[in-house]
Amino acid sequence: MPESTASITPIPADQHIQISAIIFPRMDQIDLTGPFAVLSRLPNSSVQLVWKDTAPLRDFRGLGFVPDATFADAKPADLLLVPGGPGQEDLMADQVALSFIAAQAKRAKCIFSICTGALVCGAAGLLNGRFATTHWRSVHLLKYFGATTVDQRVVVDGKVVCAAGLTAGIDGALTVAAHLRGEAAAKAIQLEIQYAPEPPFDCGSPASAPAEMVARSRNATAALTAQRLATAKRIAAKLQIAVSENSGT
Amino acid sequence: MPESTASITPIPADQHIQISAIIFPRMDQIDLTGPFAVLSRLPNSSVQLVWKDTAPLRDFRGLGFVPDATFADAKPADLLLVPGGPGQEDLMADQVALSFIAAQAKRAKCIFSICTGALVCGAAGLLNGRFATTHWRSVHLLKYFGATTVDQRVVVDGKVVCAAGLTAGIDGALTVAAHLRGEAAAKAIQLEIQYAPEPPFDCGSPASAPAEMVARSRNATAALTAQRLATAKRIAAKLQIAVSENSGT
Repeated sequence: MPESTASITPIPADQHIQISAIIFPRMDQIDLTGPFAVLSRLPNSSVQLVWKDTAPLRDFRGLGFVPDATFADAKPADLLLVPGGPGQEDLMADQVALSFIAAQAKRAKCIFSICTGALVCGAAGLLNGRFATTHWRSVHLLKYFGATTVDQRVVVDGKVVCAAGLTAGIDGALTVAAHLRGEAAAKAIQLEIQYAPEPPFDCGSPASAPAEMVARSRNATAALTAQRLATAKRIAAKLQIAVSENSGT
Repeated sequence: MPESTASITPIPADQHIQISAIIFPRMDQIDLTGPFAVLSRLPNSSVQLVWKDTAPLRDFRGLGFVPDATFADAKPADLLLVPGGPGQEDLMADQVALSFIAAQAKRAKCIFSICTGALVCGAAGLLNGRFATTHWRSVHLLKYFGATTVDQRVVVDGKVVCAAGLTAGIDGALTVAAHLRGEAAAKAIQLEIQYAPEPPFDCGSPASAPAEMVARSRNATAALTAQRLATAKRIAAKLQIAVSENSGT
């Protein structure tokens, strides 16, 4: 898809950027913390972690975080982050959370989903008619939200940016940073966080990993994927999205 | 330097790996959370975040974390993580913290420093006579801890692994994972976290960034770097490390 479909409005340097990230129990923390490392360094910006209450919560591998604000107290977001992880299932059944996301997204200049945060955005009605991506094991689910999957690590469509699985959030955040504050600002952040990756193996995507490793990964998570499919179908019915079951991802 | 100097002992699959990460106020969170995304997925392992008390604390960009255990309650670590960030200055003046790190390191099968966590390890006496690395703006400080800087993103020397700045922790963690649980386990994690990075710019190291951007970064942080140099010299005197002021990094 052409990057030229992007229409994120740059924000003037003297205008503060309010960044808000939804956090939730059993999210995958790197979906949040990778982008945080980039976006918390945007000049003239601040970040709020937002959840229903401000009691500490744990990501699904056990890392404990502290929300900064409740849905009721949250400042209006210019940039809204929606991370993923297995807890996204509960979030997609939570009308209060979905309504909050939809309301914040309406006003925001950019919505940025990471990993299976895209499924949450889909449930909030934000992906209908858009190009999108998500974790490689969930790309077949995007059509239920009216989205067309693009096989890219970062997809920009209008004011919605989707990053693929987990660590793709760092690449996506640099892309978002460049759109909002210009390439020079994004590059200065990349230098600061010394982001010149050298993965020790070439095994970070289903295209590069051995087929049997990909199959093992799918098998090990089959129950969660099936649950996510059922949820996606429920949302499609709720949002009255027509899905051809024979269409590709 | 030759990777063959590595002597991290692999841990048999049926033996649990206790991972402990020191966390502290004003650390840089991605030094912790990047490796956490990898290492929390090691088969048969668990992670503890350890600090003096278990009250929530904030990283230096404001992200709030919850420690899991105090120094007194911490389980003995097989793998000890030491992240960096500006709060490392206070840690290096904190004999209780340094003694805890030194004692845990003695028993651990692997010590893994990320970014300026290397300076903390140096202050705990763990880098004397070793090859090491740290954030690109701090590499000239390693000699004060008796270490020789190696211009690599990840440096393995004996049971000590050093990653360069911030995001290098992800590469370092995959290297550590491969040493402790074998390459197949590390590769499966890389696939899971979809780590096939595509930085949108080539600006993640002082070698690839424009010279004036590197200079601006050095200038903007000159006060902190000067403070770190003074601390390093103090530690060198304390540890009785002979440093040639004319030697390179």
